[in-house]
Amino acid sequence: MASLRNGEPLRLTILEAYRDEIERGITRMLAGEGPLRSLLRYHVGIENEHGQPDRANGKHLRPSLVLFVADHLGDAVDRALPSAVGLELVHAFSLIHDDIQDQDRTRRGRPAVWTLCGIAQAINAGDLMHTLAILSALESSPAAAACLLRASQEMIEGQGMDLEFESRSVAPSEYIEMIDRKTGALLRCAFELGGIAAGADDQDRAALVDLGRSVGRAFQIKDDLLGIWGRDDVLGKATGSDIRRRKKSLPIVLLFDRVDAEVAERLTQAYAPTPDAEMPDADVSWVVDQLNATDVRGTCEEMVQTHLDEASARLAKLPLAAEATSDMTDLIGFLARRES
Amino acid sequence: MASLRNGEPLRLTILEAYRDEIERGITRMLAGEGPLRSLLRYHVGIENEHGQPDRANGKHLRPSLVLFVADHLGDAVDRALPSAVGLELVHAFSLIHDDIQDQDRTRRGRPAVWTLCGIAQAINAGDLMHTLAILSALESSPAAAACLLRASQEMIEGQGMDLEFESRSVAPSEYIEMIDRKTGALLRCAFELGGIAAGADDQDRAALVDLGRSVGRAFQIKDDLLGIWGRDDVLGKATGSDIRRRKKSLPIVLLFDRVDAEVAERLTQAYAPTPDAEMPDADVSWVVDQLNATDVRGTCEEMVQTHLDEASARLAKLPLAAEATSDMTDLIGFLARRES
Repeated sequence: MASLRNGEPLRLTILEAYRDEIERGITRMLAGEGPLRSLLRYHVGIENEHGQPDRANGKHLRPSLVLFVADHLGDAVDRALPSAVGLELVHAFSLIHDDIQDQDRTRRGRPAVWTLCGIAQAINAGDLMHTLAILSALESSPAAAACLLRASQEMIEGQGMDLEFESRSVAPSEYIEMIDRKTGALLRCAFELGGIAAGADDQDRAALVDLGRSVGRAFQIKDDLLGIWGRDDVLGKATGSDIRRRKKSLPIVLLFDRVDAEVAERLTQAYAPTPDAEMPDADVSWVVDQLNATDVRGTCEEMVQTHLDEASARLAKLPLAAEATSDMTDLIGFLARRES
Repeated sequence: MASLRNGEPLRLTILEAYRDEIERGITRMLAGEGPLRSLLRYHVGIENEHGQPDRANGKHLRPSLVLFVADHLGDAVDRALPSAVGLELVHAFSLIHDDIQDQDRTRRGRPAVWTLCGIAQAINAGDLMHTLAILSALESSPAAAACLLRASQEMIEGQGMDLEFESRSVAPSEYIEMIDRKTGALLRCAFELGGIAAGADDQDRAALVDLGRSVGRAFQIKDDLLGIWGRDDVLGKATGSDIRRRKKSLPIVLLFDRVDAEVAERLTQAYAPTPDAEMPDADVSWVVDQLNATDVRGTCEEMVQTHLDEASARLAKLPLAAEATSDMTDLIGFLARRES
């Protein structure tokens, strides 16, 4: 494993160490002729919309975690690689379909797949990505494929819950259940796939799943914070993009739980499903005022910290060398402190 | 294997013999709580839209073929059952997404899933059905899961080609390539999954795939004939539902290939993509006149017969008992002669 620490920020170790293998694996799985294959390569950022090579890739968090765990628990990077690629492609599949569902026109600053080829073909593109993802995992092992399928199932069920939440009130516990599925499932799967490839015993696999759960919650709640307070936080100003989109993220779910009946009624009206129209600025400001008055932000930040502490405790239980534990601690800390 | 021949039409043997096992298997895979699970049970016809038991099931052609082959080549019905259920669920998944893509509001006389829950949630329902399908096949064996994934991949790529065909001219050879994927892949997979469960050798597996290819082509070309001439054929009248929907099925692809430049120009205009509007009656009549003038119907019927003859020759190569060969011959003949 190449160390990339010299002169680089600490956080890069896990995310950079396996980048080349992961990109080669993705490129191999998505090779081939035809309009759908081009769409898949476009979506993962290795081609632009004219079919020419591009470098618009994401950070490959999930497959990097798979390979890191496989590497340090069992020197099993080669065995884990197809499952790591499969996991990244499941994530990619979910984003193609999510963008259709949420009517998001852009993804990482580029046009979303469905805006290029229409909804019908974008559904196919997602379906193909998912199929190739599981085929890739099956190259690692049947157990890896089963793990990735269970994670896909949970993720899709979580997405189903999230869509259903749009039209009703949501308890905080339901929200946590939803994010454990929608975003947590793939993160838990990352740790578990690494353990499967490394031949980890049941106890270590359970510890890996627990670690993934804590990291997943911290990651998603941080995401929810960024969706409301975002980068402009450094200026003390809420950007509120998730409010404009009426996304019932954790701060909003907690807010509903804390306000009196009159405010709850107005909140319900502001969050009533309204296709094709963002929340008016005046309502956004009012929601931000309510958030500030109830300090849900502080609660969410405490929750992130709680899950980070859990993650540290769980990480300590794994039979990792000190340097590997340190690298993982750095990555987890980065995910929780990131500003975008 | 229970024989249901007494007093029943011959064609029922294969389609009825495994019905109970298949339905129990489907019911088991789709059990569970939540709005998505209800949608899946509704879609396969075991529940109505209020979540009460229903009997709106299809004929389960594909899983019946799996179990028939597994039964008669290796007494392996139990081993094959999860893969047979998986194949049926892949078919079911494709129909959920197809109905969104084609904007078909009904499916077997009931509201299509997307008309009940919206496009976003219907995409999820299809995604979940596909995931459960592969999980089911994995219960049979990794080889069965791989076979079903490859078939899913081909089917989705075929659907991608079909969508792409809407906006351009299509050569007959391209059309055959498309249907070999879009509908042929799952039928070939049916025969192959049966062979996998039965432990068939490479030669028999290749013969099964060839048989599936011939059956698939005969089945789809018959479907194309029914889409234009349909049941009313007995009255000598074209119903033309596929013409109204501007579906570029084989008769139309052949027609484009046979007419002079002037007629081709008018055909191109009539078949130009026109969302949300059927082809006007006058144009439909004109297209039917062109079809009659060029006898593409006769050509298509000859093609069905050719593929049926191929199928018979391939069937004869398999080490099946005489009665099993006879049952399969009856089923293939029924598929080719059906009137709906």
